[in-house]
Parts: sequence; C-alpha cells; structure tokens
Amino acid sequence: MSARPPEHPAGLAPREARALFRGGLVTPTAGWCTGWTQANLLAVPRELAYDVLLFAQRNPTPCPILDVLDPGEVSGPLLDGDVRTDLPAYRVYVEGELVEETPEVTRWWRPDLVAFLVGCSFTFEAALAEGGVPVRHVEQGRNVPMYVTDRRCRSAGSMSGPLVVSMRPVPADRVADAVSITARYPAVHGAPVHVGDPAALGIADLDRPDFGEPVRLSDGDVPVFWGCGVTPQAAVMESRPTLAIAHAPGHMLVTDARDADYLLP
Amino acid sequence: MSARPPEHPAGLAPREARALFRGGLVTPTAGWCTGWTQANLLAVPRELAYDVLLFAQRNPTPCPILDVLDPGEVSGPLLDGDVRTDLPAYRVYVEGELVEETPEVTRWWRPDLVAFLVGCSFTFEAALAEGGVPVRHVEQGRNVPMYVTDRRCRSAGSMSGPLVVSMRPVPADRVADAVSITARYPAVHGAPVHVGDPAALGIADLDRPDFGEPVRLSDGDVPVFWGCGVTPQAAVMESRPTLAIAHAPGHMLVTDARDADYLLP
Repeated sequence: MSARPPEHPAGLAPREARALFRGGLVTPTAGWCTGWTQANLLAVPRELAYDVLLFAQRNPTPCPILDVLDPGEVSGPLLDGDVRTDLPAYRVYVEGELVEETPEVTRWWRPDLVAFLVGCSFTFEAALAEGGVPVRHVEQGRNVPMYVTDRRCRSAGSMSGPLVVSMRPVPADRVADAVSITARYPAVHGAPVHVGDPAALGIADLDRPDFGEPVRLSDGDVPVFWGCGVTPQAAVMESRPTLAIAHAPGHMLVTDARDADYLLP
Repeated sequence: MSARPPEHPAGLAPREARALFRGGLVTPTAGWCTGWTQANLLAVPRELAYDVLLFAQRNPTPCPILDVLDPGEVSGPLLDGDVRTDLPAYRVYVEGELVEETPEVTRWWRPDLVAFLVGCSFTFEAALAEGGVPVRHVEQGRNVPMYVTDRRCRSAGSMSGPLVVSMRPVPADRVADAVSITARYPAVHGAPVHVGDPAALGIADLDRPDFGEPVRLSDGDVPVFWGCGVTPQAAVMESRPTLAIAHAPGHMLVTDARDADYLLP
C-alpha cells in the first residue's frame, strides 16, 4: 500500500480518485476533484435504518441525505463503483466501539447493511475559493478540523447525539461572503451554524479538534463553524448498533455528482 | 355536524381553524389561514415507515417532509392539537382500498401508526397572489384539481407509484413569475414540474381531475403543474398496507408553522 498522492488531485475525475483509493492510497480528500461532490458514508443494519433516516430528516443541516442505497447494495446513482473499497479510509464500529480504521471494508460488509451518503462541506470549498474566501486547511495541506459541540441534535428513536461541526478560519471582512456563498448549498450543510467564539458551542480549545487536524488562524481570521456529516456517525456510536461502517473523518467518497447539482438556482 | 364555514377563513389563526374542523366542519382548506403552512397527512404502520420516509427522500419534489411524529403520537412541534380530529376530512385505506372518507379517525388510530406531515402547495398560494399571479381555484371557490400522471416516482422498498400533480391556470405573461415565486419554497414542492400541454404528463382531460375539482381557465391561461403531496398517498395505495390514514385531498392540516419558515433566504 505504498500508493503516492497525485501531484494535482484537484484536477482528477472522480473515477480516477476512487481507483487510487481502491488501490490503497490513504489521504484526506479536501481539495480533490474540484467541481465534484464529496459525501460522508454511514452504513448501518437495516433494523436501524429508519432511525438514521429520521434522525437525518430531523437534523437536516448537519445530516443532508444525498442518497440511500438499498440493503446490501454497494453502488448507486451517485457512484459507478463500490462503497466498500472506493473511499481512502473507513472506521468500523461494533456495539458502538471503534474497532478498526482501515482502507477497505469488504470483509466487514453484510447483506443487511444500508449505506447512507450524506452531504459534505468540502463541496462548497471550491465556491468559497472562487469567491475570494481563503480555505486555510487546504492552503496548509491539512484535514479540516471537526469538533463535538455541547448542542444536542433532535433525537430519533435510538439515535441521539451531539452536533458535530467543521471549522474554517475566515478573514473578518470575508465572513459575509462565506455565509452567502455557502447558504446557496443547503444540501451540503448550507450556511454556518455559528460565527465566532468557540466557547459558545462548548469547544474549549480550537487546537484540539475531535476529528481531523488543527488549522492555523491568520491575523484577523474569525472561526466559522458549519454543520458536519460526522454528526450521524457520533449518534450511531451512542446507539451502539451491532455494526456500523463510516468513512474516516475527512476521507470522503468522491461521487459522480457535480457540486452545481446542489447549488440553488 | 352542521358547522358553517366562517366568513373570512383567510384571517383565522390555525388553532381556530382546527377547532372548527374538530367541531365537524368539512371543507377544502385552500385560502384558509393566510401565512400559515398547510400540510398533507399520511399515517402508516411502523413497519412501513422506513419505506415511506425513503420514498419521500427519493422524491423530494412531490413529497417534502415537514415532520414525522413518533409511533402513536398525535401531536408534535408543528401542531398544538390532534392529527386524528383536527383536519376537515380523512381517507382511510385498508389493504390499499379506500374504505371510508370521514371527518375524524380516532376510532381507526393505532399505537403503531407513524404520522408523516408533508408539505402542501397551498403554502405558496398567498405568495403567488401577492406577486400578482391569480389563483383561479381560490377565485372560483373550489378545491385545487389534482391529476395522476404517467410519470413514475423512484421506488423505495414496497413503495412505488405515479407522480401526482396539482394544476393552476396561470396567465401566459405571469408564468415566469409563478415559477420564480414558487422556486423559493422548495420545502413545499417548489417550482413547477411542468408548464403547458397536459398530454405530456399523460393527462387526457383537465376537466376530469383524479382528486379535487376542475377549475376554469381564463383566456390566455396556461396550465401549470406542481408536485403534489397526494403522491405518497397514491404509492401507499399500491403497497397495500393493513391500514393507512390520509387527509382527504385538499382538506389539509393547518399547522402552527409560518409560510415564511419555508421561504429560502
């Protein structure tokens, strides 16, 4: 598994990226495949699927559903590929405990698993950059930092958990642009849930994210927080199903859908 | 059950309207409670709930979910009331067959029923009128006409069925306004699915709607078709569950949510 990252991941087609990941490359996908939509993966047993779907419906900002595959299916309209192998890294949970982070999950897959594809804020990062809003974690070559907040989601059956957010530092005079640009993508988290003081979300230290990597703020940057597709993963952990499979945070599915498909008219 | 319609239903508060319907008034709700959101009701056994929710997720234009109550619940955040009694009329289906149209369904209710509240295009009719687009069926004091089309929805488990649409005649020079105004309400069907020739949707005769009442076109009017919340009701009929309870078409739940809550920023 000595696959090397390509020199220009932004210019790859989704099938090219998925082939690299299928071949063993493990890397966060921020900045990959400009213009193509990335998605969170969450696969749970069929008996939990209603709770997951209802949880998403009740918490659409952090959990925008892009598609749901039928039980046991590993491909669908959003990808000509295989969700068991085509992401760079996965997390496997048994009874709510993380048992493995692994580059493929074929041996874990079961015919009763239902795969949810959830929108990802990487989708609007190209639009931010085009709009003159710097995307610091891409500039710094890092995964986006993600934080568990003290806000609870609206629960659904056995699914309950905290709101998880991603954070991007934005120059104060570009915050309004960041809001208006991302508001046009409600299917991939939309506008920020919070601007400014991390303590208001119960986040003690920006340098210690719960997922991903810390990112440096430049002088005059304000931390801006968006709903994050890791939110349903956190709720699944709390509900402790026999098996759950998710992407490793920041290591997304690159789909065959275009960002523009999720842009409001 | 001799309740008379009020003189000015547009000015009523939702709780006043619901009290009238609870008292036995049976009437379509188009034009009632201006500014307050109306919803379709569909209640199915818990075992069918995942299929219904997934069907809605896969067909968001005709089936925009506003809320889902927990099994057996008859009230929720969108209404301070009782979904078994507070609509003007209901349809009860047993094994997919219509067995009763009735003003209340308390005796039919079961603890395993899950109530779905689905967005309704009546929500944007006030905005159409304010925007100078005449709403013919309200002018004519009729229920909106609804038609079963020859387009199939994307299926979900046991749920499959045709797209159902509502039709409003719009003066040709106001069609663009009708599109842009309703596009701002994606949670209540959004922009039209079709403008013009009914035959393109497999509709043979506008004067013979499948639900509701025919409406007269004025000279120069074009028929404009929107996704309709009766769509999931039609799919439930095809899936033949032991019991399903729905609103009678056009006889909606008036909720405590404001139309503005569903308007894009």
